[in-house]
Amino acid sequence: MTLSTPMWGLSVPVPEAGACSPSCRDAPRCIHLPSVWAPLLSLGERNFSQKEQEHRLRRGRPGGQRSPSEEGSSRCAHPPGAPACTRMCSLPVPREPLRRVAVTGGTHGNEMSGVYLARHWLQAPGDLQRPSFSATPVLANPAAAAACRRYMDRDLNRTFTSTFLTTRATPDDPYEVTRARELNQLLGPKASGQAFDFILDLHNTTANMGTCLIADNAHNVFAMHLCHHLQLQNPELSCRVFLYQQAGEESYAVHSVAKNGIGLELGPQPQGVLRADIFSRMRTLVAVALDFIELFNQGMAFPAFEVEAYRIAGTVDFPRTKDGDLAGTVHPQLQDRDFEPLQPGAPIFQMFSGEDVLYEGESTMSPVFINEAAYYEKGIAFIQAEKLTFSVPALPSLTPTPTPVP
Amino acid sequence: MTLSTPMWGLSVPVPEAGACSPSCRDAPRCIHLPSVWAPLLSLGERNFSQKEQEHRLRRGRPGGQRSPSEEGSSRCAHPPGAPACTRMCSLPVPREPLRRVAVTGGTHGNEMSGVYLARHWLQAPGDLQRPSFSATPVLANPAAAAACRRYMDRDLNRTFTSTFLTTRATPDDPYEVTRARELNQLLGPKASGQAFDFILDLHNTTANMGTCLIADNAHNVFAMHLCHHLQLQNPELSCRVFLYQQAGEESYAVHSVAKNGIGLELGPQPQGVLRADIFSRMRTLVAVALDFIELFNQGMAFPAFEVEAYRIAGTVDFPRTKDGDLAGTVHPQLQDRDFEPLQPGAPIFQMFSGEDVLYEGESTMSPVFINEAAYYEKGIAFIQAEKLTFSVPALPSLTPTPTPVP
Repeated sequence: MTLSTPMWGLSVPVPEAGACSPSCRDAPRCIHLPSVWAPLLSLGERNFSQKEQEHRLRRGRPGGQRSPSEEGSSRCAHPPGAPACTRMCSLPVPREPLRRVAVTGGTHGNEMSGVYLARHWLQAPGDLQRPSFSATPVLANPAAAAACRRYMDRDLNRTFTSTFLTTRATPDDPYEVTRARELNQLLGPKASGQAFDFILDLHNTTANMGTCLIADNAHNVFAMHLCHHLQLQNPELSCRVFLYQQAGEESYAVHSVAKNGIGLELGPQPQGVLRADIFSRMRTLVAVALDFIELFNQGMAFPAFEVEAYRIAGTVDFPRTKDGDLAGTVHPQLQDRDFEPLQPGAPIFQMFSGEDVLYEGESTMSPVFINEAAYYEKGIAFIQAEKLTFSVPALPSLTPTPTPVP
Repeated sequence: MTLSTPMWGLSVPVPEAGACSPSCRDAPRCIHLPSVWAPLLSLGERNFSQKEQEHRLRRGRPGGQRSPSEEGSSRCAHPPGAPACTRMCSLPVPREPLRRVAVTGGTHGNEMSGVYLARHWLQAPGDLQRPSFSATPVLANPAAAAACRRYMDRDLNRTFTSTFLTTRATPDDPYEVTRARELNQLLGPKASGQAFDFILDLHNTTANMGTCLIADNAHNVFAMHLCHHLQLQNPELSCRVFLYQQAGEESYAVHSVAKNGIGLELGPQPQGVLRADIFSRMRTLVAVALDFIELFNQGMAFPAFEVEAYRIAGTVDFPRTKDGDLAGTVHPQLQDRDFEPLQPGAPIFQMFSGEDVLYEGESTMSPVFINEAAYYEKGIAFIQAEKLTFSVPALPSLTPTPTPVP
């Protein structure tokens, strides 16, 4: 994958998200990091204690629970005993001001903070104006917002792949496929020089995720600086960074039609409910994000930093009957504990029969999106994440572009 | 209205729910009660303090906000200064054991505790068996439960009126109208001697209602005893009683097809989410309710008691734009404070423009179902309730029926 547009300079080959390819070792911007959570990264080589082995044997693996290694998680193949590491390569950073910025709400029509912020800004866009740009508010899925449903025919935020965007339109296309093409025309086209510079996409979750900033991966230096700026400016919110893109996966989210973007994921908030506290928090975060872009546009440089982030490693489904229906739900001891370390042997599900199901993974992990309403149909009770520390290089100041002599 | 079936004896004329008719004064089972919350019941006659008058003038009444007096709330017309009172007449109590009992879940298809309890009990009904009866589990709205939506075409729990139940069926009937007729055949027919003795209907709310027991009105002695039993057996749950039926209103809920019934309303739980703690709590409450029916069937008498209950007095809509869209949402200081006293002058809404809207009612009231997701479309931001104390007469022991001589 390369990005080579006039505004996003320093186009360098970048491996798949999170991959650790041999070529990466020689790339000039690669960073080799010791992990702060070594057991997670070397679990394939660990010797299990007696206690851990007992935990593993207590119960058969619940339906759909897959270990991180089965998920194709990207890890280095180290000799046993060697310190684990994560390597990252940075994506190019913009070399011109970001003037075409969009804020999308209602990508899921029952996530009300974004729905009502978009509707409000379409009437009163003052919040979105900065000296160097005015962000464009977009109600991404207006039919679903009107119906107060996540989507009409299919999940819009999984529809921005090349297959959907480039296939010839027909009258029978699902509503969201048609809408994705419209948004691709409005804010893209995806992967083109004409695409918007940045999309900020607004979401809510029923899970107890607090303030979560969703970036595709840690290679995205500009997005990581934006997330870090949001953390520094809002220390009381304990903003966490979640890296959602899995190895080899094509980007499918709405912000992928722009050159760059992140998602804001605030919770807990029930679907179809507009809580004032979360509405205000999202509004503040959008303001600070636009302030960051303005500072960058004005020529500010940002120093390198280290940041903790949670990277997706797999998903765990609910226990189910042979007919595919739920046979239990998230255990009370796991419910609402998003981002907290989950130890092997801890209960994760409570069966309707009364039995507990224990986590039989081989090492500690961080569950996120625990019991998110929209993920039941996707076969996800929670997402397993690994907590890592990343070193992010400095974001250089924009170099003034020489004015061509007429 | 009269109830006169072999099993529900002591048929006496009963006034409209909550009404205080002259005839009621002479009925043998009428009880005249001094209110514990006199200002609520005599607000029409109060003299307002300077401070209260300022509060009333601070802001125009928000769209849709109606005072309890405008709602047709049932109050006695007392001379100014006289102590306020509430009069109640008791409905007949059963004179035979209750053998036909149903537990309905999924009346709203995205209220997951009832959906999954009903599904579980349809496979494993052991929880519902008692020596004198076995309760019948019913998944009330299977299509909505399969789609994880409140309803398909219209709210099933507003469809059990004589109009819907008796109109000739057509192929174009809304799904829930057809389903209501099916349930009326299965569990009714409504107001007939063939109807089930009792329905326990299971619900969730996104509001912070805790454990709420919903009865039609306080005249229903058997239902009030059941609620009191649930309170006594589960003191840690702080079960509150909510009386939902407004004066002159035809009963429309699913349990109205049986001779008697109550609803369990547990929250907060997002639509489409199954929380283990709430699932377990609902299961416990159903078990205790069935235990109470068993005790009654075995011949136990229950003494008179006094109980606090919250009676519906009106509804308050969100502030809206001229197009009918939201212009603000529930104020953070009101959010999650269901059942807590709301004083005149307290903030109730936060406008998107930043302004606060204050409660300009004339006396303290108790808001319930605050910011319930399903009520946005009904134009309800919260329900106003008045907190009252009721004296409930004893529930007599069943008199053994003489065995006919062959």
